Amino acid sequence: MSDSEGVASAVLAVDLGGTTMKGAVVDAAGRTVHEEAWPTPTGGELVIRVLGDLLVALRARGERLGLRIVAGSVVSPGTIDDATGMIGYASNLGWRDVPLASLMAERVGVPVVIGHDVRAAGLAEQRLGAASGVEDFVQVSIGTGVAAALFDSGTVALGATRSAGELGHIPVIPDGELCTCGQRGCLEVYMSGAGLARRYAARGGDVLQAERIVARLGSDPIADAVWADAVHALALGLTTVTLLLDPALVVLGGGLSRAGDSLLAPLRVALDDQLAWRSAPRIAVSTLGSDAGRIGASVLAFRSVGRDDVVSGWQREGVLAG
Amino acid sequence: MSDSEGVASAVLAVDLGGTTMKGAVVDAAGRTVHEEAWPTPTGGELVIRVLGDLLVALRARGERLGLRIVAGSVVSPGTIDDATGMIGYASNLGWRDVPLASLMAERVGVPVVIGHDVRAAGLAEQRLGAASGVEDFVQVSIGTGVAAALFDSGTVALGATRSAGELGHIPVIPDGELCTCGQRGCLEVYMSGAGLARRYAARGGDVLQAERIVARLGSDPIADAVWADAVHALALGLTTVTLLLDPALVVLGGGLSRAGDSLLAPLRVALDDQLAWRSAPRIAVSTLGSDAGRIGASVLAFRSVGRDDVVSGWQREGVLAG
Repeated sequence: MSDSEGVASAVLAVDLGGTTMKGAVVDAAGRTVHEEAWPTPTGGELVIRVLGDLLVALRARGERLGLRIVAGSVVSPGTIDDATGMIGYASNLGWRDVPLASLMAERVGVPVVIGHDVRAAGLAEQRLGAASGVEDFVQVSIGTGVAAALFDSGTVALGATRSAGELGHIPVIPDGELCTCGQRGCLEVYMSGAGLARRYAARGGDVLQAERIVARLGSDPIADAVWADAVHALALGLTTVTLLLDPALVVLGGGLSRAGDSLLAPLRVALDDQLAWRSAPRIAVSTLGSDAGRIGASVLAFRSVGRDDVVSGWQREGVLAG
Repeated sequence: MSDSEGVASAVLAVDLGGTTMKGAVVDAAGRTVHEEAWPTPTGGELVIRVLGDLLVALRARGERLGLRIVAGSVVSPGTIDDATGMIGYASNLGWRDVPLASLMAERVGVPVVIGHDVRAAGLAEQRLGAASGVEDFVQVSIGTGVAAALFDSGTVALGATRSAGELGHIPVIPDGELCTCGQRGCLEVYMSGAGLARRYAARGGDVLQAERIVARLGSDPIADAVWADAVHALALGLTTVTLLLDPALVVLGGGLSRAGDSLLAPLRVALDDQLAWRSAPRIAVSTLGSDAGRIGASVLAFRSVGRDDVVSGWQREGVLAG
């Protein structure tokens, strides 16, 4: 796609996480023509400034590549109101009531929209990835914590305070272990990067990252035990999600989704066991992986300037970022 | 509202339950001008025949009152596909894959649409009742069993197989007591008419209907114990619903919602306790009571013939059935 002067259009897309902000310039064919990742600083004001710097740098890079930057999008965890461009609350970014969309638009000089990282990842999976062509599905991100995006008839649930999808904090084990959120027995106490590492260490294991714990499965009884609890907790959570939302598909993303069959095989058995009278939805691993949030952000950015033709073109041609 | 010949329009609305089918003729002002309730017979074929008889009788009655019957609607429990008019499965009606809408339209001679009873009740509460003006809310029916309708941004969740909202069967107590559905620890094992009666009798109490057990609260330790378990189970379920869907409001309907403050007071405390880091949604009792499903059916019927003007008129004037 090019405008009347023959210059190709592109958008800026940033997936803003608690440790890294991953930015990209994405052209109208859905290609990631440039990408860079910066560490996320600590402190709300500083995050705003550095995020603005990243967007400005991305815009300059895109223009050097001969592209016309038409919009930008930033997706992040937290309470995100896409419609007003406000971030209500994002604990690991140090934000409360930040008018992020307008702040960033001022800095970078193009319209900027914001979105929720997991909802954006689900949108990307629906458009280009594991949920292609599926209207009713649940995107589950299992990283340091757990969050979900619930799609029904193609539309994602937002909630009254834009806080829908807090799967990580549903009480799967009543009166279970204490969560950092103050509740007990939350799903992410057991199945999350932070939860696995904490529970493994508490049982006398080393202080290890969750991925290392998963690598020890089958040869380390402590790893096996905490993993079994984690899969059980996730299966309980997905049983509940299935009964409430009736999805056709569950897409697993986030770092722990890379556990592959160590996760999928026992999870499918547990979910089938727990659902006595109805069939389980399919369970698939994200095909876009850690790019899903950023690709979703680029979909949001093109949409915000009325370029749904671009986005549907991606779907038609199955173009992947690259 | 009247047509070109000056004859007022009306619809037929039936709320089809496992024990009773409640029918009404509802005019374009939202008034229930006639109603009658028939016992629901046993056996799938017989239910279809008697339901047809009821619709025919309602049509005749409406016409005797000088009304022109423009459409009908039947709402029922089960797996209901509003769009195709098929009932996939309704266990307590003995139905599987019944093309109910077309069967009834043939019998009664006007277009007939079908809907899910709790989703219809939620629609009625949103239009005329406790959820008036609320876009994000959850309608919970606590009768013999428990089911819910989940509204997000004004739209109700349907699910891939039209089975969303099975709140009664989410596993609130993992490895808890056995449910009739074959799963363990389902919400309705503890909080439902059937569950309360069964657990009360199992603890040495009399064989009593749930309403009678509620009437003994404060003077009967067995009643107090099973009620405490029931409220705890419902609070766990609503905690999960709140975290997943983020509703502004929970509307409680069904027979046990009439327990009033015996239900509301401890439920609010338990929900607040379980939600450590976010506020609880409001909890209200249905204002339409046992009429909600039938009123929702009449909304669906008017909508099906493009009479959204009628339905919005009800909202504007706050007309209640009567």
